Amino acid sequence: MSSFRDDGAAALEWVASYLERVREYPVLSTVEPGRIRAALPPAAPEAPEPFAALLRDLDEVLMPGITHWQSPRYFAYFATTGGEPGILAELLIAGLNQVGILWRASPALQELEEVTLDWLRQLLGLPDPLHGHIEDTASSGLVTALAAARAARPERRVVVCSEHTHSSTTKAARLLELELRTVPADGTHAMRPDLVDLSNACALVATVGTTSSAAVDPVSLLADMTAAEGVWLHVDAAYAGAAAVCPELRHHFAGWERADSIGVNPHKWLFTPMDCSAFFSRRPDDLRRAFSLVPEYLRVSEDVVSLSEYASPLGRRFRALKLWATLRCYGREGLQAILREHVRLAALFESWVRAEPGWTVCAPRHFSLVCFRRDGGDEENEALLRRVNDSGEVFLSHTRLDGHYVLRLAIGNARTAEEDVRLAWDVLRREAAAL
Amino acid sequence: MSSFRDDGAAALEWVASYLERVREYPVLSTVEPGRIRAALPPAAPEAPEPFAALLRDLDEVLMPGITHWQSPRYFAYFATTGGEPGILAELLIAGLNQVGILWRASPALQELEEVTLDWLRQLLGLPDPLHGHIEDTASSGLVTALAAARAARPERRVVVCSEHTHSSTTKAARLLELELRTVPADGTHAMRPDLVDLSNACALVATVGTTSSAAVDPVSLLADMTAAEGVWLHVDAAYAGAAAVCPELRHHFAGWERADSIGVNPHKWLFTPMDCSAFFSRRPDDLRRAFSLVPEYLRVSEDVVSLSEYASPLGRRFRALKLWATLRCYGREGLQAILREHVRLAALFESWVRAEPGWTVCAPRHFSLVCFRRDGGDEENEALLRRVNDSGEVFLSHTRLDGHYVLRLAIGNARTAEEDVRLAWDVLRREAAAL
Repeated sequence: MSSFRDDGAAALEWVASYLERVREYPVLSTVEPGRIRAALPPAAPEAPEPFAALLRDLDEVLMPGITHWQSPRYFAYFATTGGEPGILAELLIAGLNQVGILWRASPALQELEEVTLDWLRQLLGLPDPLHGHIEDTASSGLVTALAAARAARPERRVVVCSEHTHSSTTKAARLLELELRTVPADGTHAMRPDLVDLSNACALVATVGTTSSAAVDPVSLLADMTAAEGVWLHVDAAYAGAAAVCPELRHHFAGWERADSIGVNPHKWLFTPMDCSAFFSRRPDDLRRAFSLVPEYLRVSEDVVSLSEYASPLGRRFRALKLWATLRCYGREGLQAILREHVRLAALFESWVRAEPGWTVCAPRHFSLVCFRRDGGDEENEALLRRVNDSGEVFLSHTRLDGHYVLRLAIGNARTAEEDVRLAWDVLRREAAAL
Repeated sequence: MSSFRDDGAAALEWVASYLERVREYPVLSTVEPGRIRAALPPAAPEAPEPFAALLRDLDEVLMPGITHWQSPRYFAYFATTGGEPGILAELLIAGLNQVGILWRASPALQELEEVTLDWLRQLLGLPDPLHGHIEDTASSGLVTALAAARAARPERRVVVCSEHTHSSTTKAARLLELELRTVPADGTHAMRPDLVDLSNACALVATVGTTSSAAVDPVSLLADMTAAEGVWLHVDAAYAGAAAVCPELRHHFAGWERADSIGVNPHKWLFTPMDCSAFFSRRPDDLRRAFSLVPEYLRVSEDVVSLSEYASPLGRRFRALKLWATLRCYGREGLQAILREHVRLAALFESWVRAEPGWTVCAPRHFSLVCFRRDGGDEENEALLRRVNDSGEVFLSHTRLDGHYVLRLAIGNARTAEEDVRLAWDVLRREAAAL
């Protein structure tokens, strides 16, 4: 154990020092495809190597290929945070190496998962009872939701979603051989309920905070419709769901308490390291109908339903421990303070764009994502984004809205301060002027 | 960062000290269902709590609910090891918090995953080229394999497997609405090729090292049959695959080099912390046909296929880093030494059972799993297992073979020594005598 303690101290110092100087790195990796691969040995070593060699190669070989999701100047896709409590919890998780194939294989894993998901349910203002479990990603959660919906109404083979629903719904529908019926969006990029057709539908996927523009589908209206038709309503709030921790933002979620299932990703905007995707359901029996299966070698005498009976994977990591660490070490007040600051910074950035001639805000801003563009052609905006990201100072991404190439600034890193957002705006204007 | 350094040092010391005294804990948790839940607060705290409070509650509240997978006296299901290199790698993984949604989001993540999977391919003696990626579990890998098989032959809706194939195949077939055709096994619990009917089959799942008894299906014969019929052959070697690192054990795998896909879990018998399931395929284009889907907001200029195009989840953790750490810090020789010792210990235990009147070995032993029982009724064996596990000294599990309740002793923890296996045998005989 002496080498474990020494190696561990070196690994810990590596992480502490990385987090201190993360602002110094170019945010988006600039390596060419294949360069990292070429710099690595073609085969595993014959003899054991010291852990120190790994830390050295992490610095020398891998770091140029790292895109710095931990940087406060990361504004692409949805910005995230591997918060300190969750980072250290991952060390504990690996040290304990629990494999939650069934309750007795780790009662603590299962019951902590149930309890922390219930804590999260309360933080989000969702009603009791709601069954909660953790998936790796929202994509897997979509498979779980649609599989349960299909099991509940096996004769209905259509999934209804909006043109802005995340691609994971398309992917899940393809896996489950369900037909996708796409509903056009309105001017705010939200699903138009007047165009929803639920015939033959087993499920409708509504989104609070779409990936393109963080648009909000009219969940309450949609819930009326799905309830009347007995159609499974899944609410994908993978990114925006965290905002419900703040009561003043809950109006965006009106109606989600009536959903059959809900996905919220603490690894997106709730400061939990990748991966941790919360899945809530009012209908756990339908999840079990789709997934439960207990072979002889897993049969036990306890009268407990194992969490593996609610989704595809049999084995599960002790992810609950990092969610527990995150919720406790930030506390409700700490989470709210960061979420509110992110929303304030996004509103500030939005106000700068609105006030500047030659720039346009392209979508309503509900949370911490701003969609905007420079007046002019798509090529100009695409070139602008390339120059901005090539500078290494900040990293933004794009989408397409109403036929236009649109830039996205997503705030979600717990270390992002006003100066970082200000820098993004300065770099954008500087590169636009230089174009 | 000062509190991160202090908290981190405390977490590291917690893990080091846990691993030193892991033999002292009762291996199987003895808590009643609901006890951990009842000991936890009903809601998340309002104000932030120190990380030290978490470590305290880990000891006082959670530890009674931990089943000690890290114990050298854990012999249930398949014994595993969260090895030290992988534990520390998890700290780095969380610190970097890479989210591999596409290549540019982390070139290092994608290329290290490709390289370490190729290292593993070579260690296993598998041919080049073979596309590799990491899944969370073998269950997810089964979904990937069967979805690709279905996409390749959409008109064929049958999956063929043996009566001893792992339940994840049944689960995946149900998810994909494929019909399962179960082939009877022979006296060694291996699939009988003379009873295989491939009509309308899109896939056949063969197993090297079944979960019940580590039986080996006749992969070479089955590969001849599937190749002739154009049926996808998936080889599930989740547990036993690691043994192929030792050339003298490779004869068990003859033919797997012709499989369309193969699953091997480094988190099972290759000393990598949960979760890390390797998936190899000769037909990556069929995986992409089933799963590839690139929406506008993920479109980039690089001509690179992202790993998310080969399976369900979009986001992925930097799992490759822990596999890299494990393969480097053990080295080929280090891995072989532990695997060989495990096989030697299993053979030794088997010889003790064979030599002892009143006990019977119930299946051929190919790897590190011994299936055995006390002569007598199922109730007696079931009661014996309960007494053994209640002692807390060791933990074994059971299965059912040829209609009998059978005990399983699985060796797979890197810290397991001969004295631990001897203890298991002593406890078994002591409790059998006391029955």
